[in-house]
Amino acid sequence: MAEAAQTAVRTTTGGTRTAKATVGDSEFDRDTAVVRREPGVYDAELSAGWTIIHAVNGGYLLAMLGRALGDALPHADPFSVSAHYLTASRPGPAVIRTEVVRTGRTLSTGQASLFQFAEDGTEVERIRVLATYGDLDALPDEVRTSAEPPVIAPIEHCFGPSDGPAPIPGSSAITERLDIRLDPATVGWAIGAPSGKGEMRGWFQLADGRDADPLSLLLTVDALPPTSFELGLTGWTPTVELTTHVRCRPAPGPLRVSITTRNLAGGFLEEDAEVWDSAGRLVAQSRQLAKAPRTA
Amino acid sequence: MAEAAQTAVRTTTGGTRTAKATVGDSEFDRDTAVVRREPGVYDAELSAGWTIIHAVNGGYLLAMLGRALGDALPHADPFSVSAHYLTASRPGPAVIRTEVVRTGRTLSTGQASLFQFAEDGTEVERIRVLATYGDLDALPDEVRTSAEPPVIAPIEHCFGPSDGPAPIPGSSAITERLDIRLDPATVGWAIGAPSGKGEMRGWFQLADGRDADPLSLLLTVDALPPTSFELGLTGWTPTVELTTHVRCRPAPGPLRVSITTRNLAGGFLEEDAEVWDSAGRLVAQSRQLAKAPRTA
Repeated sequence: MAEAAQTAVRTTTGGTRTAKATVGDSEFDRDTAVVRREPGVYDAELSAGWTIIHAVNGGYLLAMLGRALGDALPHADPFSVSAHYLTASRPGPAVIRTEVVRTGRTLSTGQASLFQFAEDGTEVERIRVLATYGDLDALPDEVRTSAEPPVIAPIEHCFGPSDGPAPIPGSSAITERLDIRLDPATVGWAIGAPSGKGEMRGWFQLADGRDADPLSLLLTVDALPPTSFELGLTGWTPTVELTTHVRCRPAPGPLRVSITTRNLAGGFLEEDAEVWDSAGRLVAQSRQLAKAPRTA
Repeated sequence: MAEAAQTAVRTTTGGTRTAKATVGDSEFDRDTAVVRREPGVYDAELSAGWTIIHAVNGGYLLAMLGRALGDALPHADPFSVSAHYLTASRPGPAVIRTEVVRTGRTLSTGQASLFQFAEDGTEVERIRVLATYGDLDALPDEVRTSAEPPVIAPIEHCFGPSDGPAPIPGSSAITERLDIRLDPATVGWAIGAPSGKGEMRGWFQLADGRDADPLSLLLTVDALPPTSFELGLTGWTPTVELTTHVRCRPAPGPLRVSITTRNLAGGFLEEDAEVWDSAGRLVAQSRQLAKAPRTA
């Protein structure tokens, strides 16, 4: 947001128009950049700009790992990415080690781990990913989906960070980088009246206007406030595992995102995300297993 | 089934009573057994008894990998298992190599790969798994699920393999080992009248009567005929990736299973499975990404 604000231009009608960032030249691209140190090994810097309180957002980490794998594998687009979260990441230097597991004609599979460093320099693994990549542009156009996009109020009737209390209690740098507008029906938690339904729906854009691509979808699936807020649980909901399927290259424009939880039980919950693009295509589906907050 | 049949006893009422196999002493347990060769490395034999046509069932493979990881990790129960399928497995010898990625107090994460052997003895990787394990018995009893079990006709009104055409065209040894009874509403495909809905529902038991446990749930989530059959597609639906969450230790008795597909698009489809036990608990959830059959 900081950089986008610098290029914001006041329009003659009194509104603000922002010089839109592009794919490849945006905060997201700069902050998920990886530098190849040697074949399969990448240096990276986890930005403090994508933190929730002190923790680095899991979707941001996933996008960074996805970028490294897209370089290491012969196919560029993530089709299915399974991530197991091991220890909490913090802003600062990191190294990503990738392995090519299998290469095929239409699909290839790889593995990647992100490490940070202990006081004594020892590498500590933060997240490990197993992923299958392909070429989204090579897929046939045929669509026989029975899925319907989530019903979300028009964007101008939805609530953003500036419309009330911060979506996530505490200081969360990531909220400045995401333009998320939540449906009024799923923001009861923000005024102490959670619906009791495990659902959150909203519009998603990067704040600097960068359009979505397969890598940014890996961020989008884990970007909304957790469903547990609407279930009346206000604590931390750490992700254990998150698997994302990217099903279509997203069209430019705002995305519609819904996340739902049906099974809160035994101290864990699943969270299913769907991401729809402006052309009405279901572009990503994800499911995560998370620890339920301890506080009720 | 062969072994179970040997112990079948004709009852005085004319029905057959089968000496029920137990957890630890059943076809499933024998055929998913792994033998530790050295720490973290296990020898195994893929049984021809769990094949669909010539391919070894993906859920059976997952259960075998799950057993190896349960031995290698300090926790015994699979909580989340993400599997990427690389090459088609065939009956015969295999070796499983595991790696302990992280051990924690309540959760630990491991990785496992199953290899078979090329003509020249080279190891060929079939499937790679990243998994987080824990202790299901240590979870709190609290359940706040909003999920409802699938509506399935009483088991005596459902259709098994002996009630019509074989559920899967061709000779499939696995059908002898599974007692699956499909809801009449989802078997239209078997008589050439698929519903067009991407759904399959049924009752699931192992044919020799062995009760379910967390390992057999890894088989159950991938055991029903594919949803694509009810979508009117009759070809092969190879799994690319399958992630399973085991949420509760299953109670004895038949399981209810539903699988659904909402997004058939671009030559791929997702298949979501839910498994409910006889006590009405949602014991497993899974999602897979599969290639859609080429024939329509």
